[in-house]
Amino acid sequence: MAITGRNEDLGGRIRLGMVGGGNDAFIGGVHRIASRIDDKYTLVAGALSSTPEKAQASGKALGLDPDRIYDNYTLMASAEAAREDGIEAVSIVTPNHVHYAAAIEFLRRGIHVICDKPLTSNIEDAKKLVAEAEKSDALFILTHNYTGYPMIRQAREIVTKGMLGAIRVVQVEYPQDWLSGPADNKQGEWRTDPARAGAGGSTGDIGTHAFNLASFVTDLELESLAADLQSFVDGRPVDDNAHVMMRFKGGARGMLWSSQVAPGNENALRLRVYGENGGLEWFQEDPNYLWYTPLGEPKRLLTRAGSGAIDAAARVTRIPGGHPEGYLEGFANIYTEAANAIMARRDGTDLDPAVIYPTVRDGLKGVQFVDACVRSSAANAAWVQLD
Amino acid sequence: MAITGRNEDLGGRIRLGMVGGGNDAFIGGVHRIASRIDDKYTLVAGALSSTPEKAQASGKALGLDPDRIYDNYTLMASAEAAREDGIEAVSIVTPNHVHYAAAIEFLRRGIHVICDKPLTSNIEDAKKLVAEAEKSDALFILTHNYTGYPMIRQAREIVTKGMLGAIRVVQVEYPQDWLSGPADNKQGEWRTDPARAGAGGSTGDIGTHAFNLASFVTDLELESLAADLQSFVDGRPVDDNAHVMMRFKGGARGMLWSSQVAPGNENALRLRVYGENGGLEWFQEDPNYLWYTPLGEPKRLLTRAGSGAIDAAARVTRIPGGHPEGYLEGFANIYTEAANAIMARRDGTDLDPAVIYPTVRDGLKGVQFVDACVRSSAANAAWVQLD
Amino acid sequence: MAITGRNEDLGGRIRLGMVGGGNDAFIGGVHRIASRIDDKYTLVAGALSSTPEKAQASGKALGLDPDRIYDNYTLMASAEAAREDGIEAVSIVTPNHVHYAAAIEFLRRGIHVICDKPLTSNIEDAKKLVAEAEKSDALFILTHNYTGYPMIRQAREIVTKGMLGAIRVVQVEYPQDWLSGPADNKQGEWRTDPARAGAGGSTGDIGTHAFNLASFVTDLELESLAADLQSFVDGRPVDDNAHVMMRFKGGARGMLWSSQVAPGNENALRLRVYGENGGLEWFQEDPNYLWYTPLGEPKRLLTRAGSGAIDAAARVTRIPGGHPEGYLEGFANIYTEAANAIMARRDGTDLDPAVIYPTVRDGLKGVQFVDACVRSSAANAAWVQLD
Amino acid sequence: MAITGRNEDLGGRIRLGMVGGGNDAFIGGVHRIASRIDDKYTLVAGALSSTPEKAQASGKALGLDPDRIYDNYTLMASAEAAREDGIEAVSIVTPNHVHYAAAIEFLRRGIHVICDKPLTSNIEDAKKLVAEAEKSDALFILTHNYTGYPMIRQAREIVTKGMLGAIRVVQVEYPQDWLSGPADNKQGEWRTDPARAGAGGSTGDIGTHAFNLASFVTDLELESLAADLQSFVDGRPVDDNAHVMMRFKGGARGMLWSSQVAPGNENALRLRVYGENGGLEWFQEDPNYLWYTPLGEPKRLLTRAGSGAIDAAARVTRIPGGHPEGYLEGFANIYTEAANAIMARRDGTDLDPAVIYPTVRDGLKGVQFVDACVRSSAANAAWVQLD
Repeated sequence: MAITGRNEDLGGRIRLGMVGGGNDAFIGGVHRIASRIDDKYTLVAGALSSTPEKAQASGKALGLDPDRIYDNYTLMASAEAAREDGIEAVSIVTPNHVHYAAAIEFLRRGIHVICDKPLTSNIEDAKKLVAEAEKSDALFILTHNYTGYPMIRQAREIVTKGMLGAIRVVQVEYPQDWLSGPADNKQGEWRTDPARAGAGGSTGDIGTHAFNLASFVTDLELESLAADLQSFVDGRPVDDNAHVMMRFKGGARGMLWSSQVAPGNENALRLRVYGENGGLEWFQEDPNYLWYTPLGEPKRLLTRAGSGAIDAAARVTRIPGGHPEGYLEGFANIYTEAANAIMARRDGTDLDPAVIYPTVRDGLKGVQFVDACVRSSAANAAWVQLD
Repeated sequence: MAITGRNEDLGGRIRLGMVGGGNDAFIGGVHRIASRIDDKYTLVAGALSSTPEKAQASGKALGLDPDRIYDNYTLMASAEAAREDGIEAVSIVTPNHVHYAAAIEFLRRGIHVICDKPLTSNIEDAKKLVAEAEKSDALFILTHNYTGYPMIRQAREIVTKGMLGAIRVVQVEYPQDWLSGPADNKQGEWRTDPARAGAGGSTGDIGTHAFNLASFVTDLELESLAADLQSFVDGRPVDDNAHVMMRFKGGARGMLWSSQVAPGNENALRLRVYGENGGLEWFQEDPNYLWYTPLGEPKRLLTRAGSGAIDAAARVTRIPGGHPEGYLEGFANIYTEAANAIMARRDGTDLDPAVIYPTVRDGLKGVQFVDACVRSSAANAAWVQLD
Repeated sequence: MAITGRNEDLGGRIRLGMVGGGNDAFIGGVHRIASRIDDKYTLVAGALSSTPEKAQASGKALGLDPDRIYDNYTLMASAEAAREDGIEAVSIVTPNHVHYAAAIEFLRRGIHVICDKPLTSNIEDAKKLVAEAEKSDALFILTHNYTGYPMIRQAREIVTKGMLGAIRVVQVEYPQDWLSGPADNKQGEWRTDPARAGAGGSTGDIGTHAFNLASFVTDLELESLAADLQSFVDGRPVDDNAHVMMRFKGGARGMLWSSQVAPGNENALRLRVYGENGGLEWFQEDPNYLWYTPLGEPKRLLTRAGSGAIDAAARVTRIPGGHPEGYLEGFANIYTEAANAIMARRDGTDLDPAVIYPTVRDGLKGVQFVDACVRSSAANAAWVQLD
Repeated sequence: MAITGRNEDLGGRIRLGMVGGGNDAFIGGVHRIASRIDDKYTLVAGALSSTPEKAQASGKALGLDPDRIYDNYTLMASAEAAREDGIEAVSIVTPNHVHYAAAIEFLRRGIHVICDKPLTSNIEDAKKLVAEAEKSDALFILTHNYTGYPMIRQAREIVTKGMLGAIRVVQVEYPQDWLSGPADNKQGEWRTDPARAGAGGSTGDIGTHAFNLASFVTDLELESLAADLQSFVDGRPVDDNAHVMMRFKGGARGMLWSSQVAPGNENALRLRVYGENGGLEWFQEDPNYLWYTPLGEPKRLLTRAGSGAIDAAARVTRIPGGHPEGYLEGFANIYTEAANAIMARRDGTDLDPAVIYPTVRDGLKGVQFVDACVRSSAANAAWVQLD
């Protein structure tokens, strides 16, 4: 039940910059908290808004050194690369369409990139970004934060150790209700604008999370999908509800539902995995629980840090069972895994093989998933493969 | 909180016969309990098995008059029709392939039929049965028993009164796990035999329930569906998992999942309905609860006979809130609604318009649903219409 | 998953009479349904109200033979005892103060008594009734119906088999909210009238259930209790909220809370039992679940008729797991256990040792519990023993 | 849904020291994370263990300046008070018996104290500490962290706004299972040692939390209590299970149960409050939910940051509804409230009246509660008043 020093800084915090995440953003604040929880980063620079005045005001509000508040990410990348104490990593938390151009500025200068999802707003950018990332010396971490939840780590272990037998059925869904009416705030506006969000609405914003989560836990690879997308709110140019059937390599089948128009759902991401010998169920809104049923035995309620917890979960856990960890701690786990990798790179040591984080290739798959959904739906829900 | 005389016999119990439901059957016993709960029937005759010895032994075990234990339903139909005190109604609880032939024997003699679902094992029989039923003076009641749950009645009222606004999304699922391995008992055997069950496996046995429930609550009519059926257990000739996308007239969309291979699920029928202005969620294993969320307000937990209960639910409720009613009471509600209709017919009175029961046309839709699933799946999940 | 003939009549239904339970009563209707579910009784006589007109009208509404509708229970006892086809058993479902006098009329004539709880409205009657019952040839069954729930049977087995080790702590509670304001209906009126209900309000009506349930599952015997009773509603002459601390023989400790003034609670009877090696939790409103935690292992969710179900539960179960049974089925189990005992007596056979039902001695303990609560509370919650 | 700058540093982080919380402690790490989440503190000094070697090693592991790693809190207090950039506040996270002596070292030097609960290990120390704190210019904040949960803030508002009417019944409990057997780790050892923990075992460690939570939400003042304490584990010198009945001024009644020997419970702190017009229920392990029932209406499930959230909850909330916050965020809210008060003091501005944190007087009440429990139990659960 003890918190060890493991999660706390050993003296050399990573110098971090941020692109996006100004005063009225949502996800920027989440990234900053996530970077602080385990004390492995210190935020020292920012290009926090595409509007220079807002960038300055936001940087000041965060207590940044005025010299390191930048009007745009290009300036920041070059200036920081030139400093001896320049940033070692950057968090990119802008709307989707900016991810690509911003990321390459830093990757090309050897600055590690921690980027929000989806990877990019279109598939061409995604593929180019993969190429850039793979030739860069810097690391690329995508914040599919739900993979940081301890019970998701445990679920993955249960599947990969074969405790469910061959997987047959995967049911994953991510319903919300906040876009049931017209999008009338900053968060809603850009997420429903194809120029900034990409061609997917619910598919891009939350469907990618659901798809990534299912892939992470099961290690299954998608063979093809059939998608029926809908825009229920008048005049909305992107989908706000998506029904998707999936066929995985090896024969497993799945369904994915993402929706922003399902009243009574806040962030109701739910994953269920069924194999020959057992089943798993997990719900993001109650993330400290994992239901595990060995076929023919009673259901077990596994709890974070409780009886039945395993190493894969324990290493990303801070406090005793029954004291709930939440979204921010799961997000922090991605940052801490990234820090593990960055510090190993910095120190020239081998990376602990237990470290897991979503990569640029996972990001590409997410963008391919959105693209495939849109293509399939345009073809009356014909089966399509990832492109 | 009082139980009124309403649910109890007023003196003239309906004389009931039964086809099928011998000693080792499951659903026959359920029908008998359901018929007894509100004391509106008295079981007086039976052709309880297709094996004469078993028919005799089963009838004796139930205390039937030996003269009214029959070796087959044809004998029973003609003998009972000839008696002055012959049965007024018959429950047909055989495997699916017998429903059609048995039902017409009774319908043609003016004996009301209470028939288990699915209506028939194939679509031709279903259509002929509709024609027979509609030209008969006798009533035809299909035991889609889940529509008897009080909170389902309340859900239907909420939708039909417009409290959710226009329906956009319907998610319905019915997972089980009891056929995760080879079917090795009587219940499993006939349900996985196309000759007895029909072309649908999970789709016929439980998918029809899910489809009926969604239709009952929303009053939406299916326009087309795309189905991906799978038989996960080696050698199984019918589907044991079905993924279905649905398009309803008027623009609503839906997903349906039925499965018999999802470990950890017993009879996990779940319905979720989302409209412009609110959402509903109901789970068969906890049937006394109905979640209702008006958009922009907190979720309400409506309980059977609790605060917020309405007439449509109260009239099929027996005991105070917090004292759970279950599957048998829901099933009994179908029997009592049938009795209401039979007694009104007997007495020549108008039927209370509040009385609701599933009809032969609902049964046809269920068989059409299975047929459409099978056709769509054979066409690589192409969209098909009900035939 | 099959329903066997076990629960259905083998030819000789028990002839049953009823005292109380007229048109506007609650519990009479429950007893009648409970007696019908497994088809082991046939109701043939009644003295259904203390008001003769109401008794007649109620008997007629139930379809009783007019000769066997009686104006009072004394008439019924003597007339039925004189008939060759007279009742073999009687259900007593009146307000509490009538139980004693009615019961002895039947016990003295060798007619089995099935009596609602609490046993009597005062401790003197209770002791005399024990004496009468024990010298009678007839059986006495008390309908502490919650002991009929299958998962409660399983809980008892888990405890008595030692799976929890020595019991340390018992937490039991039964909150309701229906008497949060003045009692303004028939059910509330007599239950808050000491002349009819006895000295206990919530303690008598629901505290006795909670106490009985804890005793049934744990087999612990109460050593002493300290009770703090309160009447929150102005002018209410009996308690509507009771806080009780309990010390059991052998060293276990417990708390009991009964309340009729706890908004948001319908019939929220909950039992939790903790021993050296494990714990159990059960909730009456979701009775098909039993939580079992072996110390140091994950919680298991045991379900009625599901994986992990045992004989003690299975023998009082009708339908497959996931199809919920409820309050009426639990109540019916008491009736069926009573029928098992009555039929064994009738047939001169040995009673299956698995048969369990609450006895007149259990009833005495309940009345002693109420008496002790009232005495303790009057002595400022001093520790008192059962008298 | 945006995170505003509100929770992030405006430039002048509070310089913080820590007493206790070395490498193998639990709660020290929690305090450090809590202090970081909203970026209002920077840890600059520590006397992290009573063992100098461990203090040094722990300080180094946390990256503290070697000059500011102290061998004991007396040294730290004097050295830091002498520095121009000395600590402004100190977190005291030692075992209970050290709280008093450490706290006064800092209070007397004008350094704000953030102290873990219970306030002290005995009532004399507690009273002296109140006196010291009240004459000091420095602030004293006690980390009854559960009062930091947003839904607890909302619960308090619901009660204090009168939405429940006059409170009648308070049920609060805090069961755990981790001390079901002998205490065999550092956390368990000192918590079961009266010399370090004080006279209360479960009462001191978790009962104080439960009592504080009930008091915080209801604003009721305890009049008297009757307690039955037990030590179930052989040789344990302090209680591991406590049953307590409570009488509040104004007539409300309550029960409190704390236990460390209830298998299946992790940190199952649960509060239920019932008034004339409504009820509330909250469970620490699922802290983002608050059940609210207006009498006679359906239950509402209020969610953190969801529909129905109010200002009192929103001001201590970081992320959108459905993205769970947990224990660490609730704990961070206490730190941030403390920072609000410290910064107002530093800046000479008025404190926002919405700021709430547990005070030294709340701490005294907790110690009085433990003392009263021990005295009552020694007197066979006689009613006693807080001393």
